[in-house]
Amino acid sequence: MSGEGEGSGPGRRPATERGRATKRALLEAGEKLFGRVGYHETSVADLTREADVGHGTFYLYFEGKKELFRDLIRHLSHELRSTIARAVEGIEDRFEVERVGFETFFRFALEHRDLYTVVHQAGAVDPELSRWYYRRLGEGYTEGLAEAAREGQIRDLDPETMAYCLAGMGHMMGMRWVLWEGEAPPASWMEDFMELLRHGLAPSPGPEAGR
Amino acid sequence: MSGEGEGSGPGRRPATERGRATKRALLEAGEKLFGRVGYHETSVADLTREADVGHGTFYLYFEGKKELFRDLIRHLSHELRSTIARAVEGIEDRFEVERVGFETFFRFALEHRDLYTVVHQAGAVDPELSRWYYRRLGEGYTEGLAEAAREGQIRDLDPETMAYCLAGMGHMMGMRWVLWEGEAPPASWMEDFMELLRHGLAPSPGPEAGR
Repeated sequence: MSGEGEGSGPGRRPATERGRATKRALLEAGEKLFGRVGYHETSVADLTREADVGHGTFYLYFEGKKELFRDLIRHLSHELRSTIARAVEGIEDRFEVERVGFETFFRFALEHRDLYTVVHQAGAVDPELSRWYYRRLGEGYTEGLAEAAREGQIRDLDPETMAYCLAGMGHMMGMRWVLWEGEAPPASWMEDFMELLRHGLAPSPGPEAGR
Repeated sequence: MSGEGEGSGPGRRPATERGRATKRALLEAGEKLFGRVGYHETSVADLTREADVGHGTFYLYFEGKKELFRDLIRHLSHELRSTIARAVEGIEDRFEVERVGFETFFRFALEHRDLYTVVHQAGAVDPELSRWYYRRLGEGYTEGLAEAAREGQIRDLDPETMAYCLAGMGHMMGMRWVLWEGEAPPASWMEDFMELLRHGLAPSPGPEAGR
């Protein structure tokens, strides 16, 4: 599974634009039905009906429901990571990267309202895939924090530890606001979160401070 | 559902010790099978076989599989909260409360290896129950942080925001270590996490500092 997971985009890419649109419609149907009805309560017939695609056509793109689920998780992971990467591109200040990165994550989760429910089900449907999803996010995050620490922008703490701590804060704020209330965390939450982060991650004062 | 969820312990408490043991065995069977096989792939017959309990006996305690699932989530919530409350009782320093509280959470998750998978499935099986589980944890946490802020032990940030941020860090560190590796986060992770917390939450220096 981990080898399979490594390819970050969806598995087989159809050759034609029409094929890509059909595959995209099936993935969107999966995102909606797995999120709102549940993976187990959703059949291939439900997916083709929702996507308005013939039953036989489904099998041109996926071996079955589970393969569509796996492709969907990989697709969401890829979309989320590339959306955040584009949003923070060119920003030098690490705290600004964090602020924009989190705001982008919350917007993404608002546009993909079933993200949490779909990803959480992966833990039972395919534990390795669930692990791959979080690890893949964690790796990129760790690299970014390691670089900021090397540049002296943030305190010299283990970047992987910080990556999981920061991702956890975003995860839980997103659950509290996006999943439960259908809106991004209010400005006051973002301010207090950023204050926690600034003080928590600011480089220690000392001879090397202010680099 | 929220009214149902409010009672924090399991629903109907059997009158006899033998009844309580039978109910406990069924809840433990649910925790194991829902976690390792999955809620949907587990039948009442699987649960009674695992618990070594007669099929008819099951219905003395639960209306069906879903009621057992709900009782299990409430039971885990109650156990987790009371285990942490006992562990931190009498500790005055808020940062020590955090350290001991998180260590206790990781130990609890190690002893309940299926906690994550079971709770994550609640998002699809019963979204209101999932929300209740996290809200109930968040409420107690918020109260504790509000009190520490009033005492001047921590920075004056919105306690609910801090509660979700801190819970998120514990959630993700527990996923990374307890769920994936079967062990508590290593000492170096705890140290860096506590350093992030101490700096992030330390009261601002100023006239009111050092109260």
